[in-house]
Amino acid sequence: MASQQFEPPSGTRDFLAGALRTREHVFARIREVFERYGFEPLQTPAFERLETLTGKYGDEGDKLIFKILRRGEHEATGEADLALRYDMTVPLARVVANYGSQLPTPYKRYVMGPVWRADRPGRGRFREFAQCDVDVVGSSSPLADAEIVCAMADALDAVGVREFKILVNSRRALSGLLEAYGVPGELGGGVLITLDKLDKLAPEKVATELVEARSLPADIAKALVSDLTAEDAVERMRTALEDSEDGRAGVEEIDRLLDLATSKVGQARIAFTPSLVRGLDYYTGVIFEVVAEGMPGSIASGGRYDGLIAALGGPDVPACGGSLGVERIIGLLGDAAAQDERTDVALTVIAEETAAEVMGFAAALRDAGLRTEVYLAASRKLAKQLKWAADRKARFALIYGAADKEAGVVAVKDLDSGEQEQVPAAELAAYLTRRCVPTG
Amino acid sequence: MASQQFEPPSGTRDFLAGALRTREHVFARIREVFERYGFEPLQTPAFERLETLTGKYGDEGDKLIFKILRRGEHEATGEADLALRYDMTVPLARVVANYGSQLPTPYKRYVMGPVWRADRPGRGRFREFAQCDVDVVGSSSPLADAEIVCAMADALDAVGVREFKILVNSRRALSGLLEAYGVPGELGGGVLITLDKLDKLAPEKVATELVEARSLPADIAKALVSDLTAEDAVERMRTALEDSEDGRAGVEEIDRLLDLATSKVGQARIAFTPSLVRGLDYYTGVIFEVVAEGMPGSIASGGRYDGLIAALGGPDVPACGGSLGVERIIGLLGDAAAQDERTDVALTVIAEETAAEVMGFAAALRDAGLRTEVYLAASRKLAKQLKWAADRKARFALIYGAADKEAGVVAVKDLDSGEQEQVPAAELAAYLTRRCVPTG
Repeated sequence: MASQQFEPPSGTRDFLAGALRTREHVFARIREVFERYGFEPLQTPAFERLETLTGKYGDEGDKLIFKILRRGEHEATGEADLALRYDMTVPLARVVANYGSQLPTPYKRYVMGPVWRADRPGRGRFREFAQCDVDVVGSSSPLADAEIVCAMADALDAVGVREFKILVNSRRALSGLLEAYGVPGELGGGVLITLDKLDKLAPEKVATELVEARSLPADIAKALVSDLTAEDAVERMRTALEDSEDGRAGVEEIDRLLDLATSKVGQARIAFTPSLVRGLDYYTGVIFEVVAEGMPGSIASGGRYDGLIAALGGPDVPACGGSLGVERIIGLLGDAAAQDERTDVALTVIAEETAAEVMGFAAALRDAGLRTEVYLAASRKLAKQLKWAADRKARFALIYGAADKEAGVVAVKDLDSGEQEQVPAAELAAYLTRRCVPTG
Repeated sequence: MASQQFEPPSGTRDFLAGALRTREHVFARIREVFERYGFEPLQTPAFERLETLTGKYGDEGDKLIFKILRRGEHEATGEADLALRYDMTVPLARVVANYGSQLPTPYKRYVMGPVWRADRPGRGRFREFAQCDVDVVGSSSPLADAEIVCAMADALDAVGVREFKILVNSRRALSGLLEAYGVPGELGGGVLITLDKLDKLAPEKVATELVEARSLPADIAKALVSDLTAEDAVERMRTALEDSEDGRAGVEEIDRLLDLATSKVGQARIAFTPSLVRGLDYYTGVIFEVVAEGMPGSIASGGRYDGLIAALGGPDVPACGGSLGVERIIGLLGDAAAQDERTDVALTVIAEETAAEVMGFAAALRDAGLRTEVYLAASRKLAKQLKWAADRKARFALIYGAADKEAGVVAVKDLDSGEQEQVPAAELAAYLTRRCVPTG
């Protein structure tokens, strides 16, 4: 094993060719989908002014911000003035504030890139990791919410995650729920945080926590948990929510989203899920989470957050968005997404005096679009060079010595079949293009 | 104008859709070229351990490193433990040291991504900017040098920079030059630094600086400058270099490179340039720079640097590489490289009750690969929605109201010609795919 000093810093990763190609493949597929929806790409700097980020992520979040020391004469102060991007939403708010009328209305943007959080590194948890967000800023139309949900579903389809389900709820429906069950207003927030655990904890445990940690009367806790976990939970909720204005408005929001998204998503993959809460409290309308068979937690999520852009320093505009858990998705896909690049042609160099011509062949093959490599190590032994060609998983190896030059031919060895053919030098590119295309 | 607080930090840039697409287009073309050469991609973290970077870039460089404050209880110390990537070569040395035998031999890698330097921002000088490097680690073959030069030339061709010239020299030839003209050994480094200015300063000024700043005897200074700037400088140098071992070896290196690279690059675009020095002192063999008509300075450069990987903490392996000045190239290309994405189809939504079907049309058109947008703002006025479609530069706008629904047709308005057609809803995707393909 190599010495630790050469490893990447704790919580970060080096991506060598194989893993990097897989990631780029996933990103490219997602990008194609977002572009088809008319979302525009955006790229902001890796760091922002420290004050742009501070106070935006709560006390816990603030501690996880990587801060950059001031420079030059100010370095000795030990103070920071810049900080690494912690998410993609605060930079979005800054961009909307800065470019205002230069941006289309609504501003539909996608973003894919690293963010940095000084979290304790762990299995599947990194300090540098990719986020992939898509947002619509400046529209309060339910069509915008539906576009986000459809884009998420389409992106998952495109990267090969097909067994997923979109759980939908609404903040207003949740308010209506609390009202319908007589939850005292001041307990609402805590009750929702506990109810959010229904997908992980047993119902009794959730009921106990509601009573003990949230001070909810036991009868209300019991009724809430038993109705939310019942076979016919959706029907019970629909009935309960009829009794309050928020409840009715929430159900209407949800039904509208289901109606607008179904043609893309398919009825079986999207459903009103009354127990879905979502931890973050900035959502104001519909919320959703995408879960996949065999994956704990969610692989995508989002919702409407009309007050957030203003709270983050931007203008007061409605907005909604979604985030794909790309790191989890790449992990989920594993080897299925592996992108192996195969060398088409490996050129051996067995004689100094033919090297320039070999380089000429390489140029012609590359101009023809073939992935072509030239032997660059020191040995002049053909066997060693052919082993190199095989190690590079090349489909063809070329041999061109003094005798071949005299005859005006190149020996083309098919490394899959082992067969070897003499090809006139002038026809080489055409010959190999023909042979490489079918599986290339 | 927006308030300064919303601008990106000094020396950094937000890339909105147009500029970002241009950049991505340039990067994609370059990537295709490097892949055809069999170079592998690599991505390392944005930051490294501070000690990995410190001392690698000289005193001036060290001052320009962005350092990251320690976190948690250590934050108050004001100390840094991490630092933003300053170039791509130190991370390469760390990767070669860390992964050793997992990497192919030689290890041919390309890398494209941001680096960060706390330089004073200025015109065309940024604190976050992209570097694009290609290197071969573990080969001392002249073929490796030639591959680098050819890959650079091919990449420039691919992004549309065709009027360029590759200037070639060799560190050994430069040593031979100093020897041939009787430059005292201890003055050599300084003399080369001044000679490097021959492309910017008048010959007399360079001669004066050689005498005054470098303490070179006036007759040697005069002879050097007049021979290097003569019409027949190359012939004079070839003659002068015959007298020393370094000189002969250097010329041989250069001629070999010209011989191996000419088939790709073309004789007119590459030449031995005796006055080319290159500032950095880590080069050990051939060196090159690419200059383009009308651009001061170089747009690409590189050479052989056999001792550098070891000096940077890696194993002692030969290496050579090149760097494309992508920021300058993107600036040079300007609007010529602009990638405008045009919306194929803009869907209006003029009636609440047909919105779900409009979303269904959007899904079908996107599935057919068309860039499709749905009207997300609040107005229900057709004129306003058609103006939006025109603003989005859409080729077609669709209109689908209650009457259209009843008739089972969609009104398709060609926004270029202004013509409008009724298309049966079931044939919509096929119809628009056919109409969009020719110019899509």
